[in-house]
Amino acid sequence: MSNAPLSVRKAVEGLEPYVPGKSIDEIRQLYGLDNIIKMASNENPLGASPLVQKALARAAGQVFRYTQSGNPRLAHAVGAAHGVGPECVVLGNGSDEVIDLLIRCKAEPGVHNIVTFKPCFSLYPIQGKLCGVETRRIPLNDDFTFDWAKLLAAVDENTALVFVTTPDNPSGYCPPVEQVEALAKALPKSALLVIDEAYMDFAASGADGLESGLERYSLLPRIKQFDNVAILRTFSKSYGLAGLRLGYGIMPAPLAEYLCRARPPFSVNILAEAAGLAALGDMDFRKATLAAVHAGRGYLSRELQACGFKVYPSLSNFIMVGLPADAKLDADGLFGALLRRGIIIRQLKSYGLPQLLRISVGNEHENREFVKAVHELLG
Amino acid sequence: MSNAPLSVRKAVEGLEPYVPGKSIDEIRQLYGLDNIIKMASNENPLGASPLVQKALARAAGQVFRYTQSGNPRLAHAVGAAHGVGPECVVLGNGSDEVIDLLIRCKAEPGVHNIVTFKPCFSLYPIQGKLCGVETRRIPLNDDFTFDWAKLLAAVDENTALVFVTTPDNPSGYCPPVEQVEALAKALPKSALLVIDEAYMDFAASGADGLESGLERYSLLPRIKQFDNVAILRTFSKSYGLAGLRLGYGIMPAPLAEYLCRARPPFSVNILAEAAGLAALGDMDFRKATLAAVHAGRGYLSRELQACGFKVYPSLSNFIMVGLPADAKLDADGLFGALLRRGIIIRQLKSYGLPQLLRISVGNEHENREFVKAVHELLG
Repeated sequence: MSNAPLSVRKAVEGLEPYVPGKSIDEIRQLYGLDNIIKMASNENPLGASPLVQKALARAAGQVFRYTQSGNPRLAHAVGAAHGVGPECVVLGNGSDEVIDLLIRCKAEPGVHNIVTFKPCFSLYPIQGKLCGVETRRIPLNDDFTFDWAKLLAAVDENTALVFVTTPDNPSGYCPPVEQVEALAKALPKSALLVIDEAYMDFAASGADGLESGLERYSLLPRIKQFDNVAILRTFSKSYGLAGLRLGYGIMPAPLAEYLCRARPPFSVNILAEAAGLAALGDMDFRKATLAAVHAGRGYLSRELQACGFKVYPSLSNFIMVGLPADAKLDADGLFGALLRRGIIIRQLKSYGLPQLLRISVGNEHENREFVKAVHELLG
Repeated sequence: MSNAPLSVRKAVEGLEPYVPGKSIDEIRQLYGLDNIIKMASNENPLGASPLVQKALARAAGQVFRYTQSGNPRLAHAVGAAHGVGPECVVLGNGSDEVIDLLIRCKAEPGVHNIVTFKPCFSLYPIQGKLCGVETRRIPLNDDFTFDWAKLLAAVDENTALVFVTTPDNPSGYCPPVEQVEALAKALPKSALLVIDEAYMDFAASGADGLESGLERYSLLPRIKQFDNVAILRTFSKSYGLAGLRLGYGIMPAPLAEYLCRARPPFSVNILAEAAGLAALGDMDFRKATLAAVHAGRGYLSRELQACGFKVYPSLSNFIMVGLPADAKLDADGLFGALLRRGIIIRQLKSYGLPQLLRISVGNEHENREFVKAVHELLG
């Protein structure tokens, strides 16, 4: 506390400064390019739904109004989409906010702990640290499947939350629902199981864009049977609303009520609400998105495998790959060479995986351009 | 911890459930009314800027993209508007988020305390409680001016933050800047002074809608001289973006950097960013807003005084009033009677002021309709 008015808590001093990736505009300027292809952030390959854009135009004149606190219309609609009441829905400014609320509400600083895998979504340990709560991270298996026994062994009577991401990021691996259910049943009474299903729509859907496989991967259809499970979902991916920040948790009503008390009254913005309602009503766009991701994921996987890449099986809207052993470039080199051509993919250094790359499924044109560029760069 | 997976921290158990006010739609349905006048939430009386609406239409197709983390373009523009660099700007999902970040970053749970007045913006003590930090609340004087000596006396070596709202809500009182400056200089080294200037634009502007009086009320023009001051501003009021959730803090760069580390990477949504940039560029709308508030505040104050109301002098976009001693209705009665006519104003029970009412300045038509209704109801 040398310069007291500017000093911060030790936990905050220890947070890493966020290093943002380069934006599309920056890459365009840096390399003098007209067209940029971004396959880096798992965004919707088809863009924004036309019905959402219309709803945004209709609502633009209302942005001077506060939303109704808690966004009850949207909570109803989201609940209805999953067969639960609005009292089980916690909307957030992105599911980031719901993750933060779960930790803040349940985990006592200096007492409780969080258990999760490693690598995992960076926000679990970051928000844990900010909250003064220990995060225990259990390494994934070498093939990125989950070592449930080790995860469970790290849980003790002070474990407030266990975070599991299905399908996982960055691997795309999705465990069968029986394994998730077994974990839910094996956890001690102290612990809430938080299943982050940000990418579940892509696991649950087939080539036709229909969500026919949900029961195979998700507890959501049976969530009412579990009093120790919260499931996180987002409008950022299959609904195409990443920039509007809209995520939610489905959880037992008593817990949801506490989270809503702790949430600032207007955290979900008025246009996110309008867009979310419109997106839930645009099943054509959603179906087209899911079909496009299914096709694109297959195409990218086949093409890269044919080039000698190691492609990790993915049930998500991205694939994780390792370069061919004899490639002219390493992961860093390929990433940089693609960037200079205006194609942005994701390095995984921050996940501790410097030799792997993650490619978000793009639209048909983007996927083809990406494959063409890889062929040209690696020969 | 009887039902452990659903149990929450004691601090969260103690949070009051939020009771939202009725929405415009609900009032419309409840009383079978076509037109509702809302003068309850200190929103912009002129609505949303036309340039903002155009910017929103242009950006609607981009909502499937994440924003650039930290919204650097907007941070530059906001900094430039106040003569500071972007490194001194912390954008938030409403200034609510900046308030929360200040407490989370600076105040150690169970150790530090927060000092503020009573009544005050409810989020200061709520977020303090959520963070496990004591909030000390010093009563305002009977005329709603500030007792600086008592405030200072409550500060000790464990005070991390002192929150002051200028102009204040719900009274509209704004202390002269010399008093705020004296507080900044008198605080011990441990404490950061947070000046919440959500309503400052209305104090600083005159009948012509120009901001000519800022130096009289705000430290912002001289903030670089203070290493223990953070100033909060919002786009919700004079810029008309309440629903989009966009607020910010101006503070010394080292503190701003820590807050940005602790802030989730995409908390300000892409349309808030687009609207904020457009709003900063629409000085005509802003000038018209400030002029309309100045005129409307004068009109409402004169008319209500003429009816025998006690009108507290306000430098904000709302006025706080007490009913005439011989009025047929009390505050509750007048509030309800107006509601049945489709006019929504604000009760102040939650501020501990059940006999007072707060009226947001509306547009000319709304202000006239409100005065007409008061005349008819009180005779």
